[in-house]
Amino acid sequence: MPGHEIVGEITEVGSGVSRFSIGDQVAVGNIVGSCGRCAACRAGRENWCAQVTLTYGGSDGSGNTTQGGYSSEYVLDEHFVYRLPEGLDPAEVAPLMCAGVTTYSPLRRRGVGQGTAVGVVGLGGLGHVGVKLARALGAEVSVFTTSPGKAETALALGAEDAVVSTDASQMAAQTGRFDFILDTVGAPHELGPYFDTLGIDGTLCLVGITPEALRVDPMSLIPGAKSLAGSGSGGVPETQEMLDLCAEHGITADVERVTPDRLDEALDRLARNDVRHRFVLDLTG
Amino acid sequence: MPGHEIVGEITEVGSGVSRFSIGDQVAVGNIVGSCGRCAACRAGRENWCAQVTLTYGGSDGSGNTTQGGYSSEYVLDEHFVYRLPEGLDPAEVAPLMCAGVTTYSPLRRRGVGQGTAVGVVGLGGLGHVGVKLARALGAEVSVFTTSPGKAETALALGAEDAVVSTDASQMAAQTGRFDFILDTVGAPHELGPYFDTLGIDGTLCLVGITPEALRVDPMSLIPGAKSLAGSGSGGVPETQEMLDLCAEHGITADVERVTPDRLDEALDRLARNDVRHRFVLDLTG
Repeated sequence: MPGHEIVGEITEVGSGVSRFSIGDQVAVGNIVGSCGRCAACRAGRENWCAQVTLTYGGSDGSGNTTQGGYSSEYVLDEHFVYRLPEGLDPAEVAPLMCAGVTTYSPLRRRGVGQGTAVGVVGLGGLGHVGVKLARALGAEVSVFTTSPGKAETALALGAEDAVVSTDASQMAAQTGRFDFILDTVGAPHELGPYFDTLGIDGTLCLVGITPEALRVDPMSLIPGAKSLAGSGSGGVPETQEMLDLCAEHGITADVERVTPDRLDEALDRLARNDVRHRFVLDLTG
Repeated sequence: MPGHEIVGEITEVGSGVSRFSIGDQVAVGNIVGSCGRCAACRAGRENWCAQVTLTYGGSDGSGNTTQGGYSSEYVLDEHFVYRLPEGLDPAEVAPLMCAGVTTYSPLRRRGVGQGTAVGVVGLGGLGHVGVKLARALGAEVSVFTTSPGKAETALALGAEDAVVSTDASQMAAQTGRFDFILDTVGAPHELGPYFDTLGIDGTLCLVGITPEALRVDPMSLIPGAKSLAGSGSGGVPETQEMLDLCAEHGITADVERVTPDRLDEALDRLARNDVRHRFVLDLTG
């Protein structure tokens, strides 16, 4: 879903805007509107509002489809606009606006911090940010990967170690180790071996969307009172919290910049999963 | 799993026993031993100890299989013995020792209480106790059942209402309603319609063991940050807590008493799911 993580500059402000001025450097995430009145909105969980407006591919309320970051200009309510953290590269901040908050929200809500052992499954756009955020929250982090070659990347991101998930003996050695697993994989995969690596009360949280239903054996969850959870994106308060944490710890996403003339090539490479770890489209030229 | 919920009388005490005397009325649940040293045991989660000894069908450590409530005498560590709550019918207390704590533990650990909306799926041995306990904890309780005829039973147990889970329009009317669903069903069933009835951060907890894996669409869990959990039995401290709650609220299981000469008949009826809601075998005769 490209086009839903944006940074840019304020070029015009409406009369009701109080928090921003022309020239401000800002960021926008994957939602740009919600009803503002429902229980989700009142709880700062705008991402779960039934009337949410998606930044890209959503309906703008007047019959048009939102174009997100492919737009050269974008008009939106200041409630969904965030000040760009100082000292961070804007292009590297852009992916935080969805990948960042999508991984931050479940880590935070499940109490990840000092003393918790976290596993991150997959080292793509979501996973690599998840590792950095979990580390910043104080957790010990391990990465599950199908590619032995990614171990080095995992350590460079701050992980304690990398576990090759296709290696049954490496997986067996992790039995009962983790409090929380962040599963960022969007391809079909067996969850059973990951549940085995959770300790009592452990949770595996899906943030990747697989095309097909996953199989869950009740006996993977009942012994040890484990959970399979889901999460996606975040509300305004937790998005701001995530940006503050990133500013404090100097966290950004690893990106490759592309200009519009090379967009097709980038989308082809994205389809082949050949990117470390997010493409950022630069429309400033 | 019959024979794992027992009440009886102390007939002999070892020299190290401090809490019980001959003649005491006591109850025993589904576990009678654990290592006492692992993290689970130290946390009072003896049911998840890797070396747990099951009351019935377990290994007693000397090569014999434990016979549970089919035994006329039973020798065990006082750590796994509970004083029978005063004022409650012993036969009706017996099923609390597994069905009670199995439903109590997840209700309690998931914060069910005043202001929470709880759904209970199925009204068998576990479900009917689950309804009573959730009510005693202060929650509003609804029952999901496939049998329209069970609505009356549900209300008599303290439920606000009963939802016929095979009726799509009744199910649709529950969208987003529940904070917690206790799923006691042991037969294969679709979870999707139940996830839809959960609100934001809602959890469906499996305490019934289905013979086959269940299908879970990630998009049932991701929107609303929902969870599928599992739980079974409980540790010593929460078993005592459950008994205390039952004593305070006069809660027992609904049982049919059977004598040993009619045991085969009872097991046949059990296989046909024809019991309201637990058989209790009376060996006093």
